[in-house]
Amino acid sequence: MSILLQPWRVRAGGLDDVALVEAVVTSEVAWLDVLEHFGTAPVGVTADARQAWESFSDKQIDWSSAGEQAHQGANPVIGLVSQLRSSLTDAAGEEQAWWVHRGLTSQDVLDTALLVLAREALVAIRRDLRTAGDSLARHATRYRTTPALARTLGQPALPTTWGMRIATWLNGIREADHDLSRLELPVQCGGAVGTSAALVELGIDPVAAATRWAELLELAPRPPWHTMRLPVTRLAAVLAQTTAACGHIAVDVLTLSRAEVAEADEPVMPGRGGSSTMPQKVNPVLSVQLRAIALQSPADLSTVVTTAGLAADERSDGAWQAEWAPLQQLLIGAVAAASITAELASGLVIDERAAKRNLTAAMPGALAEQAAIRRDGQTPHDPTTYLGNATALVDQAVHDWENS
Amino acid sequence: MSILLQPWRVRAGGLDDVALVEAVVTSEVAWLDVLEHFGTAPVGVTADARQAWESFSDKQIDWSSAGEQAHQGANPVIGLVSQLRSSLTDAAGEEQAWWVHRGLTSQDVLDTALLVLAREALVAIRRDLRTAGDSLARHATRYRTTPALARTLGQPALPTTWGMRIATWLNGIREADHDLSRLELPVQCGGAVGTSAALVELGIDPVAAATRWAELLELAPRPPWHTMRLPVTRLAAVLAQTTAACGHIAVDVLTLSRAEVAEADEPVMPGRGGSSTMPQKVNPVLSVQLRAIALQSPADLSTVVTTAGLAADERSDGAWQAEWAPLQQLLIGAVAAASITAELASGLVIDERAAKRNLTAAMPGALAEQAAIRRDGQTPHDPTTYLGNATALVDQAVHDWENS
Amino acid sequence: MSILLQPWRVRAGGLDDVALVEAVVTSEVAWLDVLEHFGTAPVGVTADARQAWESFSDKQIDWSSAGEQAHQGANPVIGLVSQLRSSLTDAAGEEQAWWVHRGLTSQDVLDTALLVLAREALVAIRRDLRTAGDSLARHATRYRTTPALARTLGQPALPTTWGMRIATWLNGIREADHDLSRLELPVQCGGAVGTSAALVELGIDPVAAATRWAELLELAPRPPWHTMRLPVTRLAAVLAQTTAACGHIAVDVLTLSRAEVAEADEPVMPGRGGSSTMPQKVNPVLSVQLRAIALQSPADLSTVVTTAGLAADERSDGAWQAEWAPLQQLLIGAVAAASITAELASGLVIDERAAKRNLTAAMPGALAEQAAIRRDGQTPHDPTTYLGNATALVDQAVHDWENS
Amino acid sequence: MSILLQPWRVRAGGLDDVALVEAVVTSEVAWLDVLEHFGTAPVGVTADARQAWESFSDKQIDWSSAGEQAHQGANPVIGLVSQLRSSLTDAAGEEQAWWVHRGLTSQDVLDTALLVLAREALVAIRRDLRTAGDSLARHATRYRTTPALARTLGQPALPTTWGMRIATWLNGIREADHDLSRLELPVQCGGAVGTSAALVELGIDPVAAATRWAELLELAPRPPWHTMRLPVTRLAAVLAQTTAACGHIAVDVLTLSRAEVAEADEPVMPGRGGSSTMPQKVNPVLSVQLRAIALQSPADLSTVVTTAGLAADERSDGAWQAEWAPLQQLLIGAVAAASITAELASGLVIDERAAKRNLTAAMPGALAEQAAIRRDGQTPHDPTTYLGNATALVDQAVHDWENS
Repeated sequence: MSILLQPWRVRAGGLDDVALVEAVVTSEVAWLDVLEHFGTAPVGVTADARQAWESFSDKQIDWSSAGEQAHQGANPVIGLVSQLRSSLTDAAGEEQAWWVHRGLTSQDVLDTALLVLAREALVAIRRDLRTAGDSLARHATRYRTTPALARTLGQPALPTTWGMRIATWLNGIREADHDLSRLELPVQCGGAVGTSAALVELGIDPVAAATRWAELLELAPRPPWHTMRLPVTRLAAVLAQTTAACGHIAVDVLTLSRAEVAEADEPVMPGRGGSSTMPQKVNPVLSVQLRAIALQSPADLSTVVTTAGLAADERSDGAWQAEWAPLQQLLIGAVAAASITAELASGLVIDERAAKRNLTAAMPGALAEQAAIRRDGQTPHDPTTYLGNATALVDQAVHDWENS
Repeated sequence: MSILLQPWRVRAGGLDDVALVEAVVTSEVAWLDVLEHFGTAPVGVTADARQAWESFSDKQIDWSSAGEQAHQGANPVIGLVSQLRSSLTDAAGEEQAWWVHRGLTSQDVLDTALLVLAREALVAIRRDLRTAGDSLARHATRYRTTPALARTLGQPALPTTWGMRIATWLNGIREADHDLSRLELPVQCGGAVGTSAALVELGIDPVAAATRWAELLELAPRPPWHTMRLPVTRLAAVLAQTTAACGHIAVDVLTLSRAEVAEADEPVMPGRGGSSTMPQKVNPVLSVQLRAIALQSPADLSTVVTTAGLAADERSDGAWQAEWAPLQQLLIGAVAAASITAELASGLVIDERAAKRNLTAAMPGALAEQAAIRRDGQTPHDPTTYLGNATALVDQAVHDWENS
Repeated sequence: MSILLQPWRVRAGGLDDVALVEAVVTSEVAWLDVLEHFGTAPVGVTADARQAWESFSDKQIDWSSAGEQAHQGANPVIGLVSQLRSSLTDAAGEEQAWWVHRGLTSQDVLDTALLVLAREALVAIRRDLRTAGDSLARHATRYRTTPALARTLGQPALPTTWGMRIATWLNGIREADHDLSRLELPVQCGGAVGTSAALVELGIDPVAAATRWAELLELAPRPPWHTMRLPVTRLAAVLAQTTAACGHIAVDVLTLSRAEVAEADEPVMPGRGGSSTMPQKVNPVLSVQLRAIALQSPADLSTVVTTAGLAADERSDGAWQAEWAPLQQLLIGAVAAASITAELASGLVIDERAAKRNLTAAMPGALAEQAAIRRDGQTPHDPTTYLGNATALVDQAVHDWENS
Repeated sequence: MSILLQPWRVRAGGLDDVALVEAVVTSEVAWLDVLEHFGTAPVGVTADARQAWESFSDKQIDWSSAGEQAHQGANPVIGLVSQLRSSLTDAAGEEQAWWVHRGLTSQDVLDTALLVLAREALVAIRRDLRTAGDSLARHATRYRTTPALARTLGQPALPTTWGMRIATWLNGIREADHDLSRLELPVQCGGAVGTSAALVELGIDPVAAATRWAELLELAPRPPWHTMRLPVTRLAAVLAQTTAACGHIAVDVLTLSRAEVAEADEPVMPGRGGSSTMPQKVNPVLSVQLRAIALQSPADLSTVVTTAGLAADERSDGAWQAEWAPLQQLLIGAVAAASITAELASGLVIDERAAKRNLTAAMPGALAEQAAIRRDGQTPHDPTTYLGNATALVDQAVHDWENS
């Protein structure tokens, strides 16, 4: 996928191929640490490998060759392991290099490396959701009683407040963040077929090894899950859900910033939102791209879940390989969406007069429900605004956010 | 969707239109109870409504008219409310009937009714997953050390045990069940635009009302979520994930029951699996249908998440309406999948001799990894089986299941 | 799927289970005609079968038993064949009944029956698209020069005409219709594994038989395609594309009928578009439902194409079974979408004054591009309207429609 | 998307960001040619621009800046136009540079550039499908009468021939190629809102300009289709269908190359298909990756069709932007799938003895249908093979291929 065709990828730099190689190497070096720790691999091999890789990294990776090797092996690990072994052979000899990747299989390393990337991505996403939520909470409080027109099925419905509208967005951000916080990202550590046979052969306790590897990589230990893909489907679902929570905000901002509605505007930044031919244009490019991301993520989720249901044998013959790219796409989408939402929320401009104008124009229809309830001709309880519980709901949303 | 084209729907009877009408009416009657409870609606209205509906239900619903009304209102509640009001008018007079649906909007009722159905479906799904898991745990224990050939990318890899294979399936069932157990299914209770304005106008505390309504319907209370659809995306994701966990088993059973592999067979039932033209056929129809369900659910999930990201205004103009059917499909799929898996797991036939034959045929290649580790010419630790940690992993899976 | 949760199904009555049973029986009876025609089956068997079925149909089908049989066989044909055989045995004896389905396999009949339904659906879709297109052509002509504001990325861009906007919709309808007109719907006729072995055994030329069967059912002849699913993927893609062409119109109507924009309105019909609680509401329920359909169809297409890529052996073990329901959904969606679009287009109300008001409000920005081109300070060629080629494009769209 | 996570991208080099920039520049330079041709832009501007770009291209593009500009404009064209203008200003002065992109909008250029890439991709796809089909035709002819076991729902069914199996694959390739051959790839040429207002202002006939531009780029002329996305949905559908036709072959090869079935093998290439830990492994990596591609494409198609149905106003506010990446993915997938299939088909190894062994093992069940037909105790017409019309179907498939 291209940075030109998904320009929001500028906000998700840590999820490209360079980062993936780094995560693979990090995982392999940490594994050497495990082998060394349990007294199997020679003392010093971890440090040697780290150093060998660092000096290698100074050179450029030959991507075309890495791609070709990945294609010939149907996964990117084999070629990288061979590269790492070769670096270590040069630096410390064959005996040391022999230990690279020993006891693992390529699925162990790729699954683990992708979740290392995911772990880092979740930190970024959650940080940006906090920023977004803080801004939304501030706006919700400020506009807590600002009258606005609520619309259903695109048509004027009843009065609400601008703060209530924002409180709904905020609830989405809070719940997305909550689900992200509960994700458990495990290492994959089962060897060729999930039995850890090679590890046992080497005299290492597989559970202890997985636990230590997990600690080093800040992941969770767990029995092998080569073909039991719930750790991935859960992650994918929560990422797509996060993107949807952000996309929902974008949909409203796009409507509310239409010239005829004019209740909201994206934050202005010099050079942003221009057109290649229309000088007057300031396009809501943050929301447009948020919406685009939210339109792309569900299909990626669909592929991830499809492949989980097609998991086969002790390692899948196509279903696993089809899972990688959509998972990466979901990570990129959620990182970018959270980042855009943080910026959008922080600088969102609300026009109270336009909100009032649109509400007024919808009268008296917008009070027809209220009139229908007052069958007895009595004066309504709330004759001018009919806002119900709106402000209390704002307060609750802000309170829930602050306590989340 | 058709019972002929999704024949597994025979296992999901409680999710059809009759059940939906029942859930809508249950929700509306419970709401009258709320209004009566808080002293707003006249005493006895709940009982009258329940009775009126029961006597009405004796007659057939006019589905074509119900469909037409649903189409004219773009949702099925308006027509059903009108029917319920009319029944109650006949039985108890207009004054009583006026209270039907008072303070609610159609989205409140439809969202709530769908989650009432979901609640019941979850009970069925979890019951069947328990049955399935118990059977798998039994098989895993029985075949805990039975040698079998593990395959990766479709090709012979290393030895494993049949119990280990089943333990992996069991882990999927356990984790699917765990996620199902954590779902929170809330009532939707916000009135026309989520502010509960009508309720406040009627002098009822919206939070107290929602709480009581939730208790009556065995759902959770919650602030309005008309356009914040995470309660639905979460449900949809966990349902699709459950279906995938079941589908994964089917994929393996289909491979392992091929004539050339012959390690497993579906439970035989007279009259099941026959062909319209080939007398010798006993098709693995349980697995075939499980696999079909698992292939359909991800796309439904994709639609649900897409619509969540397109949620608009204070009620969506198309996105909400597009969410209903795929959600229903996901419920049907998961109920049927769990039911089929329970039956499949319970009667699964395993041929230990075939497993041994396939493993033997893969020798000595299946021990090549072990040989590669024994560089020193030493005898392998585990010279005949190379099973690594397999039995311990079986034990852990069974233990985890029993403690889940 | 439910008529309550997809209320637009009231417009697609011919695609339910009753219709499917009818199509299966029609296909089976036509096949008897083939066998009789080639002198293999006894003279009169076709007529007997038709009569036996008609008298049987007077009774109700036992859907629960039909569903159960379909579930036990993993397809709905086996049970229906058995029912048809039993009717014919009662009416004309076992010797005649023996010929029912002889030479076919259940996939032959189900694939063929679904395409019989598709053929009928295509007639309805194309008829409604013609109505829609005629209405759009009429509107486009009428509003060919009516100034309106063009918007890009939701924001005011340049002037256009209302006719030009409609012409774009019309082009979509025309091209959807064109692709529908080129679809070829074949019979499936290959026997158990596509070799027509049973037919050859019976002494019948398979190609001649398939050709005659196709003629009787108004489908196309074709070599067996049990696992080569392009006839279905093509159909599915064109249906989804049709739905998208209709959905695109709905999106614009929903925006343009917002109170603040107010340039368009759906046709009003008494009792349509009301709310369960807000008396003032006239919701754009046609467009809302069109949009919902267009949001559902792509996922169904995705499933159909996924299953095509998973086609296995000489009949798929799950992929084929997963194809049926989404294909049916695509047919229902396209039939309903075309029908709704025909009604929407025919009664669409356009407010020229609102269009002018919105355009005026966007001045002078909407002429900024024009000013940028006139670097020399010369008067623009088209100083007041800057409509470019709009009217010619309208004329071309109408002309293309009339000649399509 | 990453070359490491979609390693098959090594076969689709011409679809990366470098190629996209090239296509954008090619489109812009060709447009200058149009403006020069119609006497509006100064003579020589096209040559100057071409030269300016070539000398610029010698330097590296600053991707991070290009991505940032694309993000700020929500499309990649604005930044590239600005870069091209700047190069031309340096080389030939501001007066010349002013003409770059004049009369176009960024959607014109991006839609057109993507279809320029698509045109080139289709050439590659069709070339590889021809190679694949020629190989399959050769195999089908060679194994036209080779007995093999046909399987339905994964279970032994009837005899067939290996040639017949391959003929079915070949029919898929032929029909995919046929549909690709009928695609029409148009230029997008409508200016800011599809009215070509700027062109008219410049005194250029929009239809003539579009026609000439299309000729220069080897695309088709066509009225503007900014929000009428059928040219893209059609392309996307045919690409996904092509991938499915290839994926179907992979599914069968994966089954048939399982050790227990052993009827087929992928072509062996030194260094291909190895494992990171199991020395004996030769994995069927071509088929595994084909299957992975076929599992990914349907979701991309789903997104493209979803966005078509959400097309809004005179340029979409998110739906258009969400279309780009999945379209690119579909192109990459189809190019890679066709290339892999060509290699797989060309070197496919078939083991006639294993085929015979599997068929024999399925006897006498595999002749049960035949026995059921011979009610009279007569000798079957085809007592040993029961192959029906298989060889004639092979001949027809080969004939159809050769005449396609």
